[in-house]
Amino acid sequence: MSFEGKTIKCKAAVAWEAGKPLSVEEIEVAAPKAGEVRLKVLATGICHTDAYTLSGADAEGRFPCILGHEGGCIVESVGEGVTSVKPGDHVVPLYTPECRSCKFCKSGKTNLCSVVRETQGKGLMPDGTSRFSKDGKEIYHYMGTSTFSEYTVVCEISCAKVDPAAPLDRLCLLGCGIPTGWGAVNYSAKVEEGAVVAVFGCGAIGLSVIQGAVAAKASKIIAIDINPAKFEMAKRFGATDFVNPKDFGDKPIQQVIVENYDGGVDYSFECSGGNVNVMRAALECCHKGWGTSVIISVAASGQEISTRPFQLVTGRVWMGSAFGGVKGRTQLPLFVKMYLDGSLNIDDYVTHQFDLADIAKGFEAMHGADCIRPVIHLSKE
Amino acid sequence: MSFEGKTIKCKAAVAWEAGKPLSVEEIEVAAPKAGEVRLKVLATGICHTDAYTLSGADAEGRFPCILGHEGGCIVESVGEGVTSVKPGDHVVPLYTPECRSCKFCKSGKTNLCSVVRETQGKGLMPDGTSRFSKDGKEIYHYMGTSTFSEYTVVCEISCAKVDPAAPLDRLCLLGCGIPTGWGAVNYSAKVEEGAVVAVFGCGAIGLSVIQGAVAAKASKIIAIDINPAKFEMAKRFGATDFVNPKDFGDKPIQQVIVENYDGGVDYSFECSGGNVNVMRAALECCHKGWGTSVIISVAASGQEISTRPFQLVTGRVWMGSAFGGVKGRTQLPLFVKMYLDGSLNIDDYVTHQFDLADIAKGFEAMHGADCIRPVIHLSKE
Repeated sequence: MSFEGKTIKCKAAVAWEAGKPLSVEEIEVAAPKAGEVRLKVLATGICHTDAYTLSGADAEGRFPCILGHEGGCIVESVGEGVTSVKPGDHVVPLYTPECRSCKFCKSGKTNLCSVVRETQGKGLMPDGTSRFSKDGKEIYHYMGTSTFSEYTVVCEISCAKVDPAAPLDRLCLLGCGIPTGWGAVNYSAKVEEGAVVAVFGCGAIGLSVIQGAVAAKASKIIAIDINPAKFEMAKRFGATDFVNPKDFGDKPIQQVIVENYDGGVDYSFECSGGNVNVMRAALECCHKGWGTSVIISVAASGQEISTRPFQLVTGRVWMGSAFGGVKGRTQLPLFVKMYLDGSLNIDDYVTHQFDLADIAKGFEAMHGADCIRPVIHLSKE
Repeated sequence: MSFEGKTIKCKAAVAWEAGKPLSVEEIEVAAPKAGEVRLKVLATGICHTDAYTLSGADAEGRFPCILGHEGGCIVESVGEGVTSVKPGDHVVPLYTPECRSCKFCKSGKTNLCSVVRETQGKGLMPDGTSRFSKDGKEIYHYMGTSTFSEYTVVCEISCAKVDPAAPLDRLCLLGCGIPTGWGAVNYSAKVEEGAVVAVFGCGAIGLSVIQGAVAAKASKIIAIDINPAKFEMAKRFGATDFVNPKDFGDKPIQQVIVENYDGGVDYSFECSGGNVNVMRAALECCHKGWGTSVIISVAASGQEISTRPFQLVTGRVWMGSAFGGVKGRTQLPLFVKMYLDGSLNIDDYVTHQFDLADIAKGFEAMHGADCIRPVIHLSKE
């Protein structure tokens, strides 16, 4: 039976309040309006950003909402005027859309499409309303994706159409973590062959930086983490050197790297989960004259980064990367191609799997040292 | 008569102690050793960095020393093994040398030649000694140039040979201020045609940024200064827009620029003389997604720059530039060519001129709003 044009009742994990556990219950998902697409969500990753927003620390977080931004989905129905996807297409929803017509998309310099940013930041669709509700009470969207629901509604420009040959419970991780790290190396920093690369933090993003650096043919990939248990996986993904800052007592890690790597690294990537001191260390471990440091993770509101300006005047570059500089609709298909030809490892990220009913266990698992990404299974194909 | 191989007695402005006025007196300048060149200094600019070191605030400053780093000179004699210049050649001494063989020079990524950095920072020639003395007492070099003397000794790799068709009392300003600003635009940031550029501070460096932005064919060049008297010259050099932060009360200047220039500028250049708050404003007035801010001036030791990391994660780039990214021996001749063909204005910088005996007046003049650069005349040709 088709639900086209009708409201769907389905299960979702609702975040009713900041700081409270998610509640899995039945909600209503309205039909997509013009320019929108309703998706059946087969699988979703859980990212630290979801936990951050749920905690209440995210100033932009609005409740009640449906979190989740790493989805593997199938198009259920499309709203008026939608032409780029059709029912049955496999898609990964994008929290950074790609309209291809705004100032940002046309600049050729950034992936930060701005056309729906304002409403997306408020948890609403572009017309200023929500498609989610429960007993008539409106529930907000989140990051334009809301993948913790069996069905969700997103903008057409937020749909990256992907090859159906690849399993959606793997491709869901292309919604955030993997492109964010891989793209930071290859799209944002444009690391060149032979470069020496340092990676601060070996979680899912850090491992993706490592994979990206392997693809860029870096000569050395230095994995840095205060938890040496992370190094085994870092090595499997291609890191060549392993540094635990705790092994050097009070010596600043930037000094350790500068002394041991011939003046510092060519590129560093900060994937610490928002620690501004690590961001500074990542900059200052860069080689004078050209070293480039890329901030990837998001710090808590109010936090600031600092350094002596001399660090920049003597040739270091401080930059950042959001979603790896990836233009989702155009470039996510390339990631799927790499996965299918074996040059991009996604399988090893999926260390834990749960059904939607057990999503709370997924959040718990995510904080364990043995976890890279928990994947939640929702709708059946 | 030739002084080749002999010590020369000549006049110099000696900085005997931090915080005390320069003293013009007779000193001795030893013959150049291997790889060194003795120069007759015809003219020198005075830069704020000279005043900064003289004040005692520069942690690297060593006394007694001979300051000055914007020289227009003629080779008097050369030491053993020197092949790239010969007596009679016109040269501009370089505080950033270009050896063409160190890791930095060969990187193709920076102008920060490192080969004599350590001794230069200590006020010595590469063999660890000084060529300056007075009655047997050693006087230190400064920045590898020491142009406040009728004669000086520098490294061969610190000599940019220039076209003798151009007057040395103009070319001296190619020793620092002009390439620093012009090069920051064209070599460090690589501003492209049509870009919107903001310049914070309209002193000699800021005016050179403006000239560089004109050369890069920027579509708008916004001159920002709290002293509106500076705008007349900024306009003459090619600025198109003029903003005095004091006209906007307590509103942060970055917010003024973002609101009035369609989301912010493509490039900003900080030439404030080392104000870390201006450095922050310069970054934060940049356009999301691609805006690049270049720190040019040197802050006092201990000062730090700060911002929210979100500024970088959303696509702004924070970098710096030293001597405009200019490789002096290779690229200063291009500046001379531009001066000779009329596309680089140097003449208008020279607002004040003094003889060496009156160098103190030059330092005074420099702090006046009507001054761009004071030029001091030393040896006669």
